[in-house]
Formats: sequence, structure tokens, C-alpha cells
Amino acid sequence: MPAPELSPADVPQLDLLVVASHPDDAEISVGGTILAHLAAGKRVGVVDLTDGEPTPHGDPATRAQETAAATELLGLTWRHNLGLKNRHLTDDHAARAALAGVFRLTRPQVVLGHAPTDTHPDHVRAARLTADARFWAKLSKTDQPGQPNAESGGLPGEPFFPPKLYHFWSVHLREIPTPAFCVDITGHLERKLAAVKCYHSQVVVGRDQSFPTVIDDLETRARYWGWATHTTHAEPLGSAESVGVKSLFDLG
Amino acid sequence: MPAPELSPADVPQLDLLVVASHPDDAEISVGGTILAHLAAGKRVGVVDLTDGEPTPHGDPATRAQETAAATELLGLTWRHNLGLKNRHLTDDHAARAALAGVFRLTRPQVVLGHAPTDTHPDHVRAARLTADARFWAKLSKTDQPGQPNAESGGLPGEPFFPPKLYHFWSVHLREIPTPAFCVDITGHLERKLAAVKCYHSQVVVGRDQSFPTVIDDLETRARYWGWATHTTHAEPLGSAESVGVKSLFDLG
Amino acid sequence: MPAPELSPADVPQLDLLVVASHPDDAEISVGGTILAHLAAGKRVGVVDLTDGEPTPHGDPATRAQETAAATELLGLTWRHNLGLKNRHLTDDHAARAALAGVFRLTRPQVVLGHAPTDTHPDHVRAARLTADARFWAKLSKTDQPGQPNAESGGLPGEPFFPPKLYHFWSVHLREIPTPAFCVDITGHLERKLAAVKCYHSQVVVGRDQSFPTVIDDLETRARYWGWATHTTHAEPLGSAESVGVKSLFDLG
Amino acid sequence: MPAPELSPADVPQLDLLVVASHPDDAEISVGGTILAHLAAGKRVGVVDLTDGEPTPHGDPATRAQETAAATELLGLTWRHNLGLKNRHLTDDHAARAALAGVFRLTRPQVVLGHAPTDTHPDHVRAARLTADARFWAKLSKTDQPGQPNAESGGLPGEPFFPPKLYHFWSVHLREIPTPAFCVDITGHLERKLAAVKCYHSQVVVGRDQSFPTVIDDLETRARYWGWATHTTHAEPLGSAESVGVKSLFDLG
Amino acid sequence: MPAPELSPADVPQLDLLVVASHPDDAEISVGGTILAHLAAGKRVGVVDLTDGEPTPHGDPATRAQETAAATELLGLTWRHNLGLKNRHLTDDHAARAALAGVFRLTRPQVVLGHAPTDTHPDHVRAARLTADARFWAKLSKTDQPGQPNAESGGLPGEPFFPPKLYHFWSVHLREIPTPAFCVDITGHLERKLAAVKCYHSQVVVGRDQSFPTVIDDLETRARYWGWATHTTHAEPLGSAESVGVKSLFDLG
Amino acid sequence: MPAPELSPADVPQLDLLVVASHPDDAEISVGGTILAHLAAGKRVGVVDLTDGEPTPHGDPATRAQETAAATELLGLTWRHNLGLKNRHLTDDHAARAALAGVFRLTRPQVVLGHAPTDTHPDHVRAARLTADARFWAKLSKTDQPGQPNAESGGLPGEPFFPPKLYHFWSVHLREIPTPAFCVDITGHLERKLAAVKCYHSQVVVGRDQSFPTVIDDLETRARYWGWATHTTHAEPLGSAESVGVKSLFDLG
Repeated sequence: MPAPELSPADVPQLDLLVVASHPDDAEISVGGTILAHLAAGKRVGVVDLTDGEPTPHGDPATRAQETAAATELLGLTWRHNLGLKNRHLTDDHAARAALAGVFRLTRPQVVLGHAPTDTHPDHVRAARLTADARFWAKLSKTDQPGQPNAESGGLPGEPFFPPKLYHFWSVHLREIPTPAFCVDITGHLERKLAAVKCYHSQVVVGRDQSFPTVIDDLETRARYWGWATHTTHAEPLGSAESVGVKSLFDLG
Repeated sequence: MPAPELSPADVPQLDLLVVASHPDDAEISVGGTILAHLAAGKRVGVVDLTDGEPTPHGDPATRAQETAAATELLGLTWRHNLGLKNRHLTDDHAARAALAGVFRLTRPQVVLGHAPTDTHPDHVRAARLTADARFWAKLSKTDQPGQPNAESGGLPGEPFFPPKLYHFWSVHLREIPTPAFCVDITGHLERKLAAVKCYHSQVVVGRDQSFPTVIDDLETRARYWGWATHTTHAEPLGSAESVGVKSLFDLG
Repeated sequence: MPAPELSPADVPQLDLLVVASHPDDAEISVGGTILAHLAAGKRVGVVDLTDGEPTPHGDPATRAQETAAATELLGLTWRHNLGLKNRHLTDDHAARAALAGVFRLTRPQVVLGHAPTDTHPDHVRAARLTADARFWAKLSKTDQPGQPNAESGGLPGEPFFPPKLYHFWSVHLREIPTPAFCVDITGHLERKLAAVKCYHSQVVVGRDQSFPTVIDDLETRARYWGWATHTTHAEPLGSAESVGVKSLFDLG
Repeated sequence: MPAPELSPADVPQLDLLVVASHPDDAEISVGGTILAHLAAGKRVGVVDLTDGEPTPHGDPATRAQETAAATELLGLTWRHNLGLKNRHLTDDHAARAALAGVFRLTRPQVVLGHAPTDTHPDHVRAARLTADARFWAKLSKTDQPGQPNAESGGLPGEPFFPPKLYHFWSVHLREIPTPAFCVDITGHLERKLAAVKCYHSQVVVGRDQSFPTVIDDLETRARYWGWATHTTHAEPLGSAESVGVKSLFDLG
Repeated sequence: MPAPELSPADVPQLDLLVVASHPDDAEISVGGTILAHLAAGKRVGVVDLTDGEPTPHGDPATRAQETAAATELLGLTWRHNLGLKNRHLTDDHAARAALAGVFRLTRPQVVLGHAPTDTHPDHVRAARLTADARFWAKLSKTDQPGQPNAESGGLPGEPFFPPKLYHFWSVHLREIPTPAFCVDITGHLERKLAAVKCYHSQVVVGRDQSFPTVIDDLETRARYWGWATHTTHAEPLGSAESVGVKSLFDLG
Repeated sequence: MPAPELSPADVPQLDLLVVASHPDDAEISVGGTILAHLAAGKRVGVVDLTDGEPTPHGDPATRAQETAAATELLGLTWRHNLGLKNRHLTDDHAARAALAGVFRLTRPQVVLGHAPTDTHPDHVRAARLTADARFWAKLSKTDQPGQPNAESGGLPGEPFFPPKLYHFWSVHLREIPTPAFCVDITGHLERKLAAVKCYHSQVVVGRDQSFPTVIDDLETRARYWGWATHTTHAEPLGSAESVGVKSLFDLG
């Protein structure tokens, strides 16, 4: 799927941007966090790095329709597909420049990206790519020869470094997270799962629907992290840096 | 110093309670956190487990005056000395019951106590004692024979379990903290240091005043944790449990 | 509750022994592991250190009946109450000798005890006590003056060091375990939960029965650790030592 | 050394497959584990990613003979050289496809690969490559344009995801392993060392034969991990995921 | 064994002091470190907290003779038995005062004590006791009523805080150490093992002398840590604080 | 900036070599360590991988002058720019060969390189590149077809493996280091900061000069690590391997 031209005029500024490898990764990993922040009035976007196809039961057109349905259900402020190549994701300079451009145009205060360890090679590269692109997004003089995107006039927008980068854990590697904190998604689980189920070709078709299904697993994990942080449902996030708080009473 | 009788009628309900081994530990470790929460309108108290004497240059009367001055400077809602024996602190059942009683009367949402590892044996026992007393504070039927404080009518007040317990790091052990988070104390450092300096017998008398002094050390550490969390000054806190947040934008 | 006299003639040799602070801790923490090993033909026992009373809605007679019902439901080979004092558990020499005696008489290949960190002070002492008693159980010459239990004829039975000690996590501290491994309890969860529910005075009476209840929490955690180890339900266990295996195909 | 054509008809299905950078890495790191599983009747294979040459005292023909001798001594079910370039190993898509093909044809229940940190750059890439190829091995529709190996008809065999991946530690980096578990290789050390010594050009020629030699080091480490797990000799293995067990009595 | 009166006049000042639970623990754990520092001209002492008896094949007289022989073989500057009760070691105030007195009289720059986790309950208490006594050793005004040893005139000598405390690992718990650093004991292993063998009643009598013996185990571990730090034999030490160095070339 | 031809005749043998991504990284991260070792008579060099330009306020000529001034101020034995491309640093084979050549010609006993995690993508690649080049530096037969630099006659100099590699932490990622040890730089901080300030285009021009500046941050961190290791100023270094010491008295 070739990436649609990203027209700066059409790109909204965001509070929170999720960078996901494949359409459905954002929903699966931080669908509740997305919903909770939208409900709180934040502008939340998702950039999918690839179209996620081929898969056993999907195809590009179907996946795009499923993505649109999930986007609608979540009520995302903005969603964009970067058009990188599924299964072949690499953390090269071209991909870095493309994602850095998204950061410069959307200017999110918080970026959520993949955890650095995972089973899916695309996820591992996405983690690296997201961290790298965050740094490139702040570079000046990118229109000089040899600099990022210089041949096409340099990176779009103004230099910008997203102040916070946290990472989420996906479904492939059953690593026990060591979260920096967990986001309370109580009240948002049902819709999160509905958004995941929009990806019918991924989570339903051809899969054994006996207990526990992928959806059951997501429910269990949301409950587990809710239990761990004294609430009903939650999603864990990691951070390479220590987190700061203004007040102890801002913690759940 | 015999503990003054704790009259329930005089004990205010608190939002935040700091449990410290010796008068000056609260100021040294979380003086900024205390000030930041007082400034935000929270009711903040300190319970000192012992009177901290003898020390090389102190005596009980002087230490009490210094404590009063620091308390005044901080503007604490409430401060109490539990009258346990300095240098001989033990995590026995009597001490546990005494501290549990304080928790039941003050009913804080958050308790701050010593980290479990430290060089000062009193601090190590205080850490254990604080965690244990937190649990005892929620017990019912404490007026039955053989139960905590039963001989004197049981634990005072109603059963109460302080929902959050975090721990702070003191000055003796130069362990590198692994904070769960850092509290932004920007704007409160000067007053924190002034409160510490109230303990003239502890931090000034008989100490080499050449760089770096104890006060210099505190400034360095506040700056370090401020640097680490992208602010000016901060204090690190640990947690045995993962922390939860309602919004990513509640983090500094 | 005074501990019944432990008659060596009546004590069976065991494969697996669980040491728990209060009746219901064994069921809550490793009820599935108990059932899985009983189903595999192992002799499994539980030693409860205290009678667990008083509690808000329990009393010694009720708790004893509940314990008997749970024991029956599990089909335990042997269960014994050591009669130490609830809420006041200490890791002193008398308690150590009493538990060491149990180890010498039951001679289990594997002991399961509490994790060293927990919110309940009894659990913390139980962890220490179990590790200490394991060592004392192997001592010779305990009938010499000044040696463990010498005044009452020394430790019963022959010296014995249980080869393996693993620890389990309870419900009070919502610490994220770092398990050495997880035991597959698939097929045993329903009965485990039934055994826990025998403790009606603890998990039902006076508790809010809306979601999530204590039972819901246990189900979530069993599922989480099942998910983490590619099975349906599991219980995590910790180990201070590395574990050894004869074959990679002995792992689940 | 160009990789010999891998004829699916000649590739046996395996229980256990070791992926090693250079011929001798499998013997050095998990020679005992290989022997223990062969002795237990398992089908065990090794895929060497490169031919390991040049080296100071080796050459391709000698190394191939040494490899053949070690293979014979171990009694491996199958061994294959993937023909990637020694010293220049990269975790690119072509290498990933080649190794994924091996996984699909051999269909091992357990894969052993290099630890993610090491001193030899080939080992670091091999770790990444093994994890990535494991994921690619399960992909469907690989014969579509732009998909893995599509130009040559797609990945061979049927989609297959090796259920378990553990990692071993090599000799270059003297990192202290944090093993998930250790495999008991008691009774197999002598033959393991004999297999390593087959690589005469690598471990004997031109090396100081005074104590401690490479062979002495291997003996020490096997004994150390044996000591650590209460047996005579063992090899440590790591895991990104928690391990599950059916029975506590399956652990050594 | 009643502790002989510690006559200040007879106590030498030391560079390095090892605090061990039982005679043979110092030799087993840091015998090489002791020898290496004696060889470098340092004054090295050992304080044994208990006499280590009873044991299956020992008795106080034999153990004392063995200790004397080992002391002679090592060439220790000073050795003292504190006379605390074997198997019943507690970290109480009397024991703390007694050990603090030793620190004040010997004034070592470095103290080596037991690691905080171990299988032997005495070792666990010794670890705590050593850390606590180190702090008490610096206290002033210990001759005031209610202060350490006040009833017998207070702690002996002048206040002194041993600047460095490191911990060693014993043989009971087969935990994998995470050393802060390893001490090169190359050239000293043979004599270390000879010193351990002086404890004939402990390491030879009644023990299976087939491979691997306790002595074999010690050799393996010395080699393992030697391997890990690029030398022949070494002993690992832990530290609660980060270590500092003046020059990178002071590291082995 | 094209790399000047590295003439072996002009390259001195070094004791310590710092590998930095951009001119100013060496000064910022280990400027004190450099000065302390130069003061102790060691030969210390820096290899900058790129010229560090473009930057918002710098240009190649200015940066080169600043670098020359800092080099002069430090009194470096040798400094070299490898001419790799700023912002586009990759850990490819050509870069690996170039850096390996530097190692073979300078033959340092200790190499200091970037920590493996960082925010700047160049730093992450530099960490990998430094570790990889260290290994390649020891390879023989590099003049054979297909081997490193074979087309230009192979790697220069003789095979050499720098015995020690430690890593330093930079300013971008505010990760809390877990140092293997800290180097005492007391007495060298002022000159370190002066060397950093030579990079006027980087740390002064266009930057807010209100507290805390980049220079203030460096001072804080030097003090923090000095505090942590009981000295005035220090710099932390990490190590993948355990460190060894000959004497406990070689530690600060």
C-alpha cells in the first residue's frame, strides 16, 4: 500500500500519538489508553507503519476497511498509514525521516511506541525506529545536502522533540512487563475489545474460538494490570527514563 | 523522651503522613515533597519514631526546639513524636501497635516511610515497622485478649489501611535509588534546606563546613533527580507495587 | 488455638509440603499446584502456622470448620495447624523448632513457603521462619543443652533438609512476581476456587460481591500466568536458586 | 563456502535445533545439552550459519573436516551449514528467509540460539536473526510478490512457529548469565569436551596450552552451573518468557 | 564457649576485618582475599561470631584446634571469637554492641561480612548484625544510661565507622552472585584450600569424598570467578553502594 | 568532513581511547576521566566518529576549531576524526573496519564507548559499532578476499583486542546509570567544564543561559556520582563484564 501523500494542511496537532507496526497493534496494546484520553478531551492519533498485509486471512482492502471501522469506533482524532513494508520493516534512514516528519507535523506531547523486545521482527524495528525518529524530528538544517529528506526539501514542519516516549507490550512475546506505570482504562475495556474485533480477519477468521481466545487474553491482561494497580482494568507502559509527578495524588 | 499521650480529639485527619526514625529524617528525605503538598492545600503530618538523641552535639531539649522550629518553617499540619528509643528501635509488637494507632487516627491516603535498605539500624527497623503497622491499622477486634493493645482497650480509632505506601532514601547509605517516580519540588528547595538547617546540632555543629557539606549534598541530590525527570529539583520515591495513573498528562 | 500434640506415628511422609501463615493462604496461593500434584499421585500436606483468627467475620470454630471443608475438597494427604499466634507471628527460635520438627517428620522433597516481601507482617515472618526452619531441620545433636528443643528432648525425627524450597505470592501485596517458573494448573482452577470459597467468613461475608471480587482476582491471576506460559491457568513460584532440568521437554 | 542446496526430502523433522554462528559454537555452548537429549532419544540438529573461516589457524577444508568429526562424535541427527558469510553476518531479510526455511523444514519443538549480548558481532546478529527467522517461519502467503523468498517460490515447507526459543552463552563475553534454568549434562561432559577438541585448529593450534586452557574453562563453567543446580555438570539457558512446568518433580 | 575478655591493649589495629558466623566461614568464603591482602602487607583479622558447635562430627575443643591451625596457616594478624551462640545467632542489641566494640578497637578500613540472603539462619542474622554494628561503632555518648553497653561503661575505644563494607557469599545457598567486583586470588588458592581443610571435622569427617567434594566445589567457584574476570582464581564480593576507583588501571 | 588519511607512522600507542559519536561527547561524558588519567601520566586519545555537523548554531569549520581548542585544553595525546556521517551513523562493515583500524594502530588497554541505550540514534549505533570494531580489531587474515578492508590490503597494524571496554552515559537520555564503578575526577571538574565550554556553538549559542544550563547539569551529575562514591566529583562507567581488582585498597 503506497503511503498517501501527507498534506501538512490536513494534519492536526495532537496531544498523544501512538506509533504501531500494523493496523490492530495500537488497538490491542493501548486501545484503552487511547479511549481514556479521548474521553478526557485529548487529541489522539495513530500512525500505522505498514498496512499489515499479507496475513493468512486478510488482504489490503479488507484490512483497510477494518482499520477504518476501528478508527471510527475509537473516535480517533487522526490516523495515518506510513506505507512501509509489512514483514520487512527496517529502521533505515528513509523510514526514520518519514516518521520524523509525522512527529513534526503532529507535535504530540506524548508518543507511545513498541517495547524494544518482542517476537515479531517488525515490532523490534518499530521500537528502534520510533526512538530514532523522535530524535531526528528535532533536527534543524535538514534541507542541507546529505541531511534527512534534503532531496525533497528537508523534513516537513518545524523541529520538534516529543517530550515523552513510553512503550507498550504486544501479544507475541509473553514477557512479563516491568511497567513504569499502568494507565487506568476502567470503563473503556468493552469498547477497546470492540475495536480489536473490528479486525475480523485477524482475530476471528480461522482462529479457534474456544476459550481462551485472543480477546479473552486481552481481557485477562487488562484485568491483571488493573488488579496490580488497585483498579479494574489497566494497560502497562514502560519508560527508559524515570517518571516525574507534581503531586502524589495524581497517581491512581 | 516519653511519648506524650496521644489524644484522639487533638489528632487531625491527614492526606499525607511521613514516618521518620529521627527528627530531621523527614526534612532531609522528603522535605520538598512535604512543602509541595502543603502548598497544594494538602494536610501533611510527620510522626517521628524517636527523639533522635543522644547525638554528638545534641541533647533532647535542643533537638526538640530544633524540631519545633523546622515544623514551624515547614508549616506542618501535625507532628508527633512516638517516643520509641533512639538507636534501639525495634520492630516489635508494642511499637507496631503504637504506630498503627497513629495511622488509625490520622487516616492518611499516602504514607511515606524509610526504604528497606539503609546503613542506620533504626532506619531498617523503621521501614519494617511502618509496613507492619500499616497492616495492623486495619485490624478489627483488637480489643480481644491477646490482640494488639487489647490490655489498654485495643487500637484507637476505626480500622484503616492507608491506601498507598511509598519509601524514601536517607543520607547514610549511598545506594543509587530505583525510584518508582520522582516528586517535583521545584520552588521548594530553599525552604527545605532551611528546615534541615534548623537542626543546627545535627548538620552544622562540629561538622566540617567546607564543600561539600550535608546541605550541599542535599542540593546536589535534589538537582540530580530534577535533572533525571526534566525539572529543576525533585525527590525520588520507591514503591513495592506498580503505580497507576488516570492520565498520561498527570505525569511531569 | 493450642496446637494439638504432633504424634510422630500419625505423621505421613510427604512429597510436597506447603507452609502457610493462615488457613486459606495455601488455597489462595497454591491451591492449583496442590491439586495438580495430588492428581499426579503425590502426597501433599499443608502446615498452617496460625489459626488465622480473629478476623472481622470469623471465629476460631468457624475457621476450623472452613479449613476442614477445604482440606476435604482438596483431598490433602495431611494438614496440621502449628498453633502459633495469629497477627503476632514471629520468627523466633521456638517457632523455628516447631516448624523444623514438622519438616523432620514429613520429610518433603519440596517445600512451598511465602515470598519474602509482603504486606501482611505474618507473611513476612513466615517466609523467614520457613527458610530458617528448613535449615534447623537438618541439625544433629539437638538434644544437647542449649540446642533447639533440647529441653523437650530435642527435635523429633531424624535430621532432614528439604531439597527444594520455592515461594509463592499472596494477595495483599500487588507486587509483580518474577517467577522462577509457573506451574500449570489447567483443569484444577474450578476446584481451587471452590476450596477458597470454603472460607466463607473470609472471602464472602461482609465483602462487596460486585466485580471484581477476591475470587475474580484469583481467576484473573491464574489466567494471566497461564497466558504467560502458553497454557490456560498457572501459578507462579519463585526460587532463590536457579532451577535445573533433566530435559528441555520437561518444561511446559 | 556456498551453502549446499537444501533438499526438503533430505531434511528430517527434529525435536531440538541449535542455531550457531560458527562451527564449534554449538559444541562449546550446548554440547552437553545436545548429548543429553540425543541420549534420551530426541532428534537433535545443528544449523551453522557460517563456515567460521578464515581464522588464524584454520581454513575452510580443515574446518569442514573438524565439523564432520564433531558431528560424528556427537551423533547428531542432522547438521547443515547455511553458507552465510563469516565475520560479516547480518540480520538481513535474505538471511532471515534462509533460516526461516530451515525452521519450516525441520519443525523443531525447541530452538536454541545465541544470547542477545556478546562480544563477537556475528553472535549478536545471530541472536537477532534466530528470533526474527522464528517469526518469519510461521508466515503464510510467502509466495506473493515482495514477500520472503517469493522470487524463488516462497519459503519452503509449511508455516511453522517453533514453540520454544532459549538462548545460550558463548565464550567471548564473560558476562554472568541469568539463566532461566540449567540443563543437567552430568555424564556427558567428557564427550562434549571431546567434540570441542575436534576443532583442533580453533582450540589447540597456536594456543598456549598451560592452565587454564579453553577446555579447562569449559570444564569449570560446566561444573559451576552443576554446582549451582545441585548436580555435577550443567549448562545454563536463558529465556525471554517465563517457563512453565507440569510438575515440580520435573525440575532437577 | 564463653567469649574471652577482649583486652583493648591486646587488640591490634587492622586494615581488613572479616566477620564470620562460624569458624571456617571466613576461610571458605574469602580465604583467598585474606591471603592476598596479607601477602601485600595488610593487617587482616577475623572475628568469628560463634564457635560453630555442635556439628555432626565436631566438638568445641576440636573446632578450636582446627581454627587455631587454620589461623596459623593463613598467618592472620588477629582472630577473635565473640562467643555468641551457634545456631541461635540473633541480631539483638547485646550482640550488636559486642561486635561494635570489636570495630572500635580494630578500626578496619574494610569490613567483609555475610551476604544478606543465605540458607543458614545464622548467616542471615550475621549479615544484619554486621551492618548494624558498623553503625553503632561510630556512636558517641554510649556511656549514658540506656545507651549501648552503658551499664559496663559504654562501648570500648573511640567512635569509628569502618569506611567500607562488602559482603561475601557462603556455600549453603547456591544463589548466583551479582558481585560488585571480584578479588584476584591467583596464587593463593592452594593455601586457601589447605586452610579450609584444617576444619577436618567439618569438610572431611563423615562426608562422601567422591567428586565433587566441598573442596572441589570451592575450587570450581574460585576458577569460575577467575574466568569471569580474566584471571585464574578470584572471589566475588558484593556492595550496597557503587564502588569508586582512582584509575581505570587499578582494575584487574 | 572527509576523514584525513590515517598515517600509521603518526599514530601513537595509547593507554586509554575514548570513542565518541560527535566532538563534545567525549568531553561531556568522560572529560574528567580523561584529565585524571592524563594527570597520572597515561596516554589518552579520542576518536570522534563524525564531525557532529550540521547543528543549529554550528558549522564544520567552527566545530573543528572548537574541537581543537578542547583538545588543547585537555592536553590529549591524540585525537582523530573518523569522518563518518553525522546523524546517519550506521554500524555497517565499512565503519567497523575503519574503527577497528584505529584500535589496531593505537592499541589501547582500555576503550570507553557509548552506553547501548540512548536517545540519539548515532549514539546507539556508536555503542554497537565500538563493541563490534573491538572484535574485528583482533582478526587475522583480513587481507583475504571478502575480508575486512581486504580491497585496500586489509586492516592496518597487527591484530589487537583492547582488553577492557567500558561505557559512558551521555546527556540525551536521562536514564539512571547502573555503573560498574565511578572514576574519581575530583580536582578535574573545572577543566572538564572548560573543555565542554570550548564547544560554544553547542552549549552556549542559542541556549537559554538561565539555571540549570547544560554546564550546570554536568556539574550536578559529577557531584551526584561523587556523592555516591564518597568523593567530591566522579563519572560513572558501565561494564558488560564483572570487574576484577588486585586489592580492596585499590578501590576509592
